[in-house]
Amino acid sequence: MSRVKVGINGYGTIGKRIADAIRLQPDIELVGVVKTKPDYASIVAKMNGINIYVPENYLKKFEEKGVNPSGTIEDLLSKIDIIIDATPGGTGVTYKQLYDKYNVKAVFQGGEKPEVADLSFNTLCNYEEALGKNSLRVVSCNTTALLRTLCTLKNISKIRKVRATIVRRAADPKEIKKGPINAIVPNPSTIPSHHALDVKTVLDVDIITMAVIVPTTLMHLHTVYVELESSVTRNDIEELFADTPRILLVDPSIGLKSTAELIELARDLGRKRNDIPELLVWQDSIETRGTEVMWMHAVHQESIVVPENIDAIRAVAQLAYKAEETIELTDKTLKILHGRLAS
Amino acid sequence: MSRVKVGINGYGTIGKRIADAIRLQPDIELVGVVKTKPDYASIVAKMNGINIYVPENYLKKFEEKGVNPSGTIEDLLSKIDIIIDATPGGTGVTYKQLYDKYNVKAVFQGGEKPEVADLSFNTLCNYEEALGKNSLRVVSCNTTALLRTLCTLKNISKIRKVRATIVRRAADPKEIKKGPINAIVPNPSTIPSHHALDVKTVLDVDIITMAVIVPTTLMHLHTVYVELESSVTRNDIEELFADTPRILLVDPSIGLKSTAELIELARDLGRKRNDIPELLVWQDSIETRGTEVMWMHAVHQESIVVPENIDAIRAVAQLAYKAEETIELTDKTLKILHGRLAS
Repeated sequence: MSRVKVGINGYGTIGKRIADAIRLQPDIELVGVVKTKPDYASIVAKMNGINIYVPENYLKKFEEKGVNPSGTIEDLLSKIDIIIDATPGGTGVTYKQLYDKYNVKAVFQGGEKPEVADLSFNTLCNYEEALGKNSLRVVSCNTTALLRTLCTLKNISKIRKVRATIVRRAADPKEIKKGPINAIVPNPSTIPSHHALDVKTVLDVDIITMAVIVPTTLMHLHTVYVELESSVTRNDIEELFADTPRILLVDPSIGLKSTAELIELARDLGRKRNDIPELLVWQDSIETRGTEVMWMHAVHQESIVVPENIDAIRAVAQLAYKAEETIELTDKTLKILHGRLAS
Repeated sequence: MSRVKVGINGYGTIGKRIADAIRLQPDIELVGVVKTKPDYASIVAKMNGINIYVPENYLKKFEEKGVNPSGTIEDLLSKIDIIIDATPGGTGVTYKQLYDKYNVKAVFQGGEKPEVADLSFNTLCNYEEALGKNSLRVVSCNTTALLRTLCTLKNISKIRKVRATIVRRAADPKEIKKGPINAIVPNPSTIPSHHALDVKTVLDVDIITMAVIVPTTLMHLHTVYVELESSVTRNDIEELFADTPRILLVDPSIGLKSTAELIELARDLGRKRNDIPELLVWQDSIETRGTEVMWMHAVHQESIVVPENIDAIRAVAQLAYKAEETIELTDKTLKILHGRLAS
């Protein structure tokens, strides 16, 4: 089987993780990544055998730092079928014409406006609809987290409404110029936060979200109140989530009481960069009251969208025709857990 | 008018603030405070002319540090009409018999179980019911915050349900042994958190709360979703809160975007210990959808219960027969703001 050829524009938090993930796929080939800064990440990429491409006017800057690029961004685009756009939020749209010019399909990230792509995408919600599309937009980390649970819940009952709170990490671990250091910041102070609107780009549901930023770097946390059409039991929901790919139930009684301990788990599992692409639901937080369901989950902002990006490649390239197929392959290659943590 | 004589058992975060507040009241006299550690706070209290009483077996320990107590706790109890119990959570109940023995009425704090007192108390909810009671329990900071808004809302409509999230500060500014430093901690990970149960000790309402702890010391923040019986407009709620004592609407557009900026406001107002006994509601967070109301507010954990403690003294001593009377006097003497911040 000839593999689909993919490039990545942007090699930051998301781009470098997708690069690693692609290199574990049997049906996808990473041709190269586009970088604009000749920094340590370029050196590590080269050490790992990843080809670097740059905008034409950056060639000299890279050569001066001893990083010899494999060519320009146009060179890369002429060799590939699909580009993953992992440029900073709002930048992807400025490349759209260039991608089109080279007749390359594009997978954008959640930092772009929905109009950038033919469809906003989450594997559990609309994989089949995404098949063969010219461009997709993988929604952001918080939206991906909410959609994994909501698109699962709607399989057992129509959803009447969702009222959630997003407790956001202030900065990623490597970021040194962001805050707050000691404050809670409504962000935005208006309601709803954009997360509700972003969920609606994929799932038609009555959802309102509030968001605050807090001084931590590790993960986001959501508190979710949902009202369904049908009555459910706590056990229904626990079983449902335990049966869903990319959702892992975690148990505070075995020492997983906080986002810090979840990251320690990822470190102990030997995961590269302590990544947690699973959505982590605190098992004992799941509660029901008739038609109401509520729970808390933790979201690893740096890595949760990685599996959905791999699936998005398969969707536009029509490498898999059902969500189950791509999920099985992605999750096996990336060693993604689900169910309850057990040895 | 002869003033009602009050003592305070415990001179920590809450006790020292209530001591200061009592000394500003025309109808209440502070006879003394009970301390068990001869630390800097004892020295500052003496500098400010506050008499210190100690358990009998602590007399020597204090004298060794050069702090001469005015007598024992029993000496204090024999001189006063009312004791404010501001001992650490769960300790107050162990003193109850002693207070009864000296026929002293008692005001306990929210760290005690509801059974400690004849009534759990919030001025805006049940002042008249508290008149002449032998003991009251002023509910905790988070509960006080929720009750100020909910007992106000129920004046315009029956409340169908409340679904809130409590984002808690990890430690008070002076605490050096608490965390987290970099994590979000569901606390508890089960639903509901005790805050919902505590609200119910004062107000009969369908309420569920989830709580998380985050790495900050300044204030708590709540996101609140409420469903009423009647439809309301955004303007109804803004006007209602603006007309309520001890609620101050704050406007992010004038630089009050976070808990840090709210504390800076208190510092700029020259407030002792940067206290904010007002509940601060972000004006532009107030939103409605038919019968639904939602908003975000910030809670200064160290000082929000101070005015309610002063009112509790007036209730048990029957110094004021209506909530409006005590609120007017307390808020004038403590310079508590309400409405919208304006020069």
